[in-house]
Amino acid sequence: MEVRYTIIGIIHSPFTNQKDTPIQSVYSSADGTIEVFPEYADGLQELEGFSHLILLYHFHHEGPMRLRIAPYLDHETERGIFSTRHHDRPNRIGLSIVELLSISGNTISIRGVDVLNGTPLIDIKPYVFHFDHRDNVRSGWIDRADRERQVPFTPDQLTRKHPSGKNGG
Amino acid sequence: MEVRYTIIGIIHSPFTNQKDTPIQSVYSSADGTIEVFPEYADGLQELEGFSHLILLYHFHHEGPMRLRIAPYLDHETERGIFSTRHHDRPNRIGLSIVELLSISGNTISIRGVDVLNGTPLIDIKPYVFHFDHRDNVRSGWIDRADRERQVPFTPDQLTRKHPSGKNGG
Repeated sequence: MEVRYTIIGIIHSPFTNQKDTPIQSVYSSADGTIEVFPEYADGLQELEGFSHLILLYHFHHEGPMRLRIAPYLDHETERGIFSTRHHDRPNRIGLSIVELLSISGNTISIRGVDVLNGTPLIDIKPYVFHFDHRDNVRSGWIDRADRERQVPFTPDQLTRKHPSGKNGG
Repeated sequence: MEVRYTIIGIIHSPFTNQKDTPIQSVYSSADGTIEVFPEYADGLQELEGFSHLILLYHFHHEGPMRLRIAPYLDHETERGIFSTRHHDRPNRIGLSIVELLSISGNTISIRGVDVLNGTPLIDIKPYVFHFDHRDNVRSGWIDRADRERQVPFTPDQLTRKHPSGKNGG
């Protein structure tokens, strides 16, 4: 069974190369813009009251689907794809929480961009503190890997910090 | 331009009727299970180390696409669909953060279910505190609406609390 979604806009970012793109928004201070196609602009009304947005988008670069992956943050161990945020998933949907700077017409200025330039947008949802924060969170292998790396910005930087390891993708 | 995704599993919940389904996971204490189709079960490896999951799924009940909606939490005012979490969006993708209780084979037991029984699953991502929490969040009209309602569980309850208002969907 399949579902079909329509691309509703394009995310513009400074990143044209996967290996130089921050692996998560929280590691990025880059600015970008979202161009929402004009036919959807009416849906942006009252969005400007929110400080953060959840973006859902399509990982549009080529890549095989993999059920096990050696993830960027710890590329010496293979793990189930659903325990990672890696792009080579059964359905290539990405999720980023970005800071909303301003909206002008159908253009949204954002900060904390971690996607390739030209990424196709599927949905925008408001980030709501009461809905989306959780306390007492355990984040399995990522807690450990995250603590061990001080500035894990991009795949390229992660690989250079551990030149003996293989890169997961 | 379109993208196509394959359904990777089914979410089973106690809710068979939209009007009795909690509008957000944070308002739900209901348990449910996720049946991941066997061909994707290998991707669940190491997921059990995470306390919370982000589920992406398809809002599979019928409904028109709307760019302005009177949302459940404040159904007396129409707002842009992207400033709400309402299901009648251009692309009917839902996002829930649920608590992971246990995994047995290809079945995941979860708590905090806010979806209809039989909801088609598109992706599972680990909820990672460092990636997914934000401080200093402003949540626009939802901050105000959320403060005013003490126990806004379901569309039916919200409508009954404000019988004079029209229900948004």
